[in-house]
Amino acid sequence: MDRAVFALAGTSLLEAAARAGIVLQTPCGGVGRCGKCRVLVTDGFANLADGLTGLEPWSDTETGACLACVARANGPMTVDIPETSLFESRQTILTDDTGVRGSLDPHVRPCRFELPPPSSRDTRSDVRRLRDALGPDTTLSAVRIRALPGALRGGAWQGTALLRGSTLMGLSAAATPPPAYGIALDIGTTTVVATLIDLSSGREAGVEANVNGQATLGDDVISRILRVRQNAADLTVLQTAVRDTVNGLIRTLVRKAGIAARDIVDVVAAGNTAMQQLFCGYDPSALGELPFVPVFERGHALPAAEIGLKTHPEAEVFVFPQIGGFVGGDTVAAMLATRLDRCTAPTLLVDIGTNGEIVLAANGKMLATSVAAGPAFEGARIAQGMRAAPGAIEKIVLNDDIRVNVIGNATPIGLCGSALVDAAAALLDHGMMDETGRLLLDDELPTDLPSALRSRMREADGHPCFVLADRDEHGPGAPAVLLRQKDIRELQLATAAVHAGIGILMRRLHVETGAIDRILLAGGFGNFIRRNHAQRIGLLPAVPSERVLFMGNAASLGAKLALLSVEERRYADRLRDRVEHVDLSLDPEFQNEFGAAMIFPEP
Amino acid sequence: MDRAVFALAGTSLLEAAARAGIVLQTPCGGVGRCGKCRVLVTDGFANLADGLTGLEPWSDTETGACLACVARANGPMTVDIPETSLFESRQTILTDDTGVRGSLDPHVRPCRFELPPPSSRDTRSDVRRLRDALGPDTTLSAVRIRALPGALRGGAWQGTALLRGSTLMGLSAAATPPPAYGIALDIGTTTVVATLIDLSSGREAGVEANVNGQATLGDDVISRILRVRQNAADLTVLQTAVRDTVNGLIRTLVRKAGIAARDIVDVVAAGNTAMQQLFCGYDPSALGELPFVPVFERGHALPAAEIGLKTHPEAEVFVFPQIGGFVGGDTVAAMLATRLDRCTAPTLLVDIGTNGEIVLAANGKMLATSVAAGPAFEGARIAQGMRAAPGAIEKIVLNDDIRVNVIGNATPIGLCGSALVDAAAALLDHGMMDETGRLLLDDELPTDLPSALRSRMREADGHPCFVLADRDEHGPGAPAVLLRQKDIRELQLATAAVHAGIGILMRRLHVETGAIDRILLAGGFGNFIRRNHAQRIGLLPAVPSERVLFMGNAASLGAKLALLSVEERRYADRLRDRVEHVDLSLDPEFQNEFGAAMIFPEP
Repeated sequence: MDRAVFALAGTSLLEAAARAGIVLQTPCGGVGRCGKCRVLVTDGFANLADGLTGLEPWSDTETGACLACVARANGPMTVDIPETSLFESRQTILTDDTGVRGSLDPHVRPCRFELPPPSSRDTRSDVRRLRDALGPDTTLSAVRIRALPGALRGGAWQGTALLRGSTLMGLSAAATPPPAYGIALDIGTTTVVATLIDLSSGREAGVEANVNGQATLGDDVISRILRVRQNAADLTVLQTAVRDTVNGLIRTLVRKAGIAARDIVDVVAAGNTAMQQLFCGYDPSALGELPFVPVFERGHALPAAEIGLKTHPEAEVFVFPQIGGFVGGDTVAAMLATRLDRCTAPTLLVDIGTNGEIVLAANGKMLATSVAAGPAFEGARIAQGMRAAPGAIEKIVLNDDIRVNVIGNATPIGLCGSALVDAAAALLDHGMMDETGRLLLDDELPTDLPSALRSRMREADGHPCFVLADRDEHGPGAPAVLLRQKDIRELQLATAAVHAGIGILMRRLHVETGAIDRILLAGGFGNFIRRNHAQRIGLLPAVPSERVLFMGNAASLGAKLALLSVEERRYADRLRDRVEHVDLSLDPEFQNEFGAAMIFPEP
Repeated sequence: MDRAVFALAGTSLLEAAARAGIVLQTPCGGVGRCGKCRVLVTDGFANLADGLTGLEPWSDTETGACLACVARANGPMTVDIPETSLFESRQTILTDDTGVRGSLDPHVRPCRFELPPPSSRDTRSDVRRLRDALGPDTTLSAVRIRALPGALRGGAWQGTALLRGSTLMGLSAAATPPPAYGIALDIGTTTVVATLIDLSSGREAGVEANVNGQATLGDDVISRILRVRQNAADLTVLQTAVRDTVNGLIRTLVRKAGIAARDIVDVVAAGNTAMQQLFCGYDPSALGELPFVPVFERGHALPAAEIGLKTHPEAEVFVFPQIGGFVGGDTVAAMLATRLDRCTAPTLLVDIGTNGEIVLAANGKMLATSVAAGPAFEGARIAQGMRAAPGAIEKIVLNDDIRVNVIGNATPIGLCGSALVDAAAALLDHGMMDETGRLLLDDELPTDLPSALRSRMREADGHPCFVLADRDEHGPGAPAVLLRQKDIRELQLATAAVHAGIGILMRRLHVETGAIDRILLAGGFGNFIRRNHAQRIGLLPAVPSERVLFMGNAASLGAKLALLSVEERRYADRLRDRVEHVDLSLDPEFQNEFGAAMIFPEP
């Protein structure tokens, strides 16, 4: 499956791949030592910088082989990523170091059968005859029993049974088993990602993403919860909105894959507590008052038809277990994908979005919490903020002047969260902003500041701002894109919340910054930020940046695992039971920590 | 619950009670030895004959106490039957001789709960909070989870949960548990019997019966099966017919008991294979061709709403396991009620209806078969035959002349199956019919035959007939009721089928007639026949008549047991697995036996 990604010159192939949602193996931490992230540059090899020397046998100029962690792109190129280098390949994910698991064991599977027809010596009932072939525990609903006599006789006593666990979902008389696909859903507050998986092979057959249809009904989870609290009927409105989004994604996936909607026989969904509950039609009102109480905690399945999904009529949706408060199924899915419980050294899992979810595994314990980061990282409440979509400035580099990378190589019309982090880090480094987040003007600016940069610090509406793009700078008619003082304040609030959350979990488990072995960044935003910039503004602890790993969409990955193996679903429930939820909403310590974190750290 | 029954003078109270559907305990075989069938004659004591002398301490003229097995009614009386004398009382049925079982353990039961409200120290999810109170295995459907947040908060965190096994069916905030009733259904080809049971006490709260609405669509199971084979859409027509019959019975029961339809939270149904399958909407077509194959064999539950029953919306119907061919759930239910597997001496269970179902337990084995008796015993295909309804001659005694008992003390308008058996036996005994079943006329009749009887043997339409009631004999305008030669032929066919079936099972298990310890008569017809008359015509083996016991509606009783205890449902499946089905449809031995049985036995 081809994916295109835009990156500034000098970006490592590892990072570029991560931003395309492809996570490579980096057991050595991405320092060119283990050779696991080997990729093949099939076109544009001349645009490659670094990554070739002294790394035999992994690198090879003849074949275009190189290590993605050290190779950097200086121009357009096509890169082929071998299955063996993928972090999320079944090989690496499903075979963990204990070596116990690893088989493809989907909950729903086709099962071929051939029955002896009834005779005077064999008058077994239809149900028993089928059970004797498929297993004694096979259960048939009344609907299935009703269809059975006709199906068996119409198919000359042979065909393919579709089984969900031991439950018969359907019978087909076709000689070849009908296709069986699953959908893994990552239901974000802002974005819904759907992955189509061929359950017979585990192969990913497509990925589609779209804005959560609920977005127009409220920016963040709180506003949507408040809607339902004010008007119970809005529960249906919100459920319908996300249901329609998912059905749209399914429609596209099905069309592109050339399959039928009824070939989708299983669905797994992961999202935060509010998103999961709204998707299921469970009232999230109790998440809108103290203490925050979710409706359920265990993973469970419900009929897809009851939610209104356009799938096989008897498909079920498995909804991930939830930890508590706002720490939901997406966090459990990410824990599952990263095998967080098996990390022997202190490991931090961070998913930054409108809510920041943080899990710290250390000293045999796991603590999870969530903080309300607000939508700043997703571009909302930022004057010219926008989602990471074409036209968004997504990366900023300051030297003598500013260099920006715009998604889709388009004319810049705004900035997304990752550029916001870049800008703040760079402004701090260049002395154009003080540690309280105040943008400096005129004689407050360092005397040695390049004039181009100096000229970008201006006033707008009586407040200082930093000009990311001047009017007409990127072509005639191109709008100005400004970073305003107010935007920095929003960033500070968001950053401080995450910082305080991480700090409290570390203190609870007695983990010093230097002891952190790994920071795993999950979620869309995490994969777009520059690690060092996130550390510069205090969003992430200041560990050596090779210890900060991009995990891609770990929630999606966890959902895929649960789609491919029943054991993963049980594992998810066990993870949920092992993690302790830390509720910061009532914690005075959090308020102190949060206040302190409003000051950017020393360089 | 009062029941009225009409009986000829001289009928034992035991037999009269059985005909009212009340089965008394008779461990001694009904010979006045054990005292278990003790009843109290509260009114009309003077009309009692026998049953008082020498039976102390059980009999007592002062209190009206007597033994039902030996006491005979010579006139109207009111009899009070103590719970301890009932064969079907929970005390006797649910406590068997092994003493293991016996508790009232219904599948559906209300369960009171009181939960601590959420607090900052206790942010468990709603589902978990409820599960912690009701049991960790409690499962909630999506519908239930949806209703949960509102129900818990609306009821101040307390109320009553309705549980089916570990599945939550509903929540009520009421302080007192809402009523929970069950319906036990005996779905016969001709008649449907519904019993209303209070699940909290096991108390029977009402019984209603009505003609199976399918009767107008076909007399017997075969004609209904053929309908579906010819036109698949008729499956729905037939299902709807019996569904409507059941709903009518439920409506009446609910109204009389002063409860609501939604108080009916569980349903158990037993019937023959065709009736059970039609009730469930399972195509019975394969029962209409050789080899007869039922759709299912195991007992299972399906949603009552899916069948269309007017009960609690989430109630389920448990359908009894089926043995094979035409030996269905009613036979398993009767086996369950009679604990047939625990009989140590050879025991025969016989349910005579349109189909005769026969089970023989002997030498550690159980064999079951069914024979097509045709509807003669239920009054069909008999010129003036009718069901056991008001106006039906139900009993015939021949002495100098004929004496008849008419149901409802009404003017006789026809005869039902039990009178047919009486008549045939009496005609044989009086030499008015030869052993080939030929009615005799004029000089063929014994010379010493009383003239009144002789005058009743006439010709009608060129064939001999026996006049049960002359025109105007029972009042002005009363119609003549005739027993025709053709009617005797129908009786012979029906009798021979049952006789042959019993004979083959006995031969298979090497049981001689003299070795039969008990013949248990189940089903409506069995409880209306005179044992000695049934034996006289060869319908039942010629064992001493005290070894022939009326079991009442054993299928209904089995259904009630399954309603009151989950363990009984499992027991039913085990019984089903232990019994071997003998398919006589392809057995040449049966044809021989059947032919031979067309000749009435020697006296």
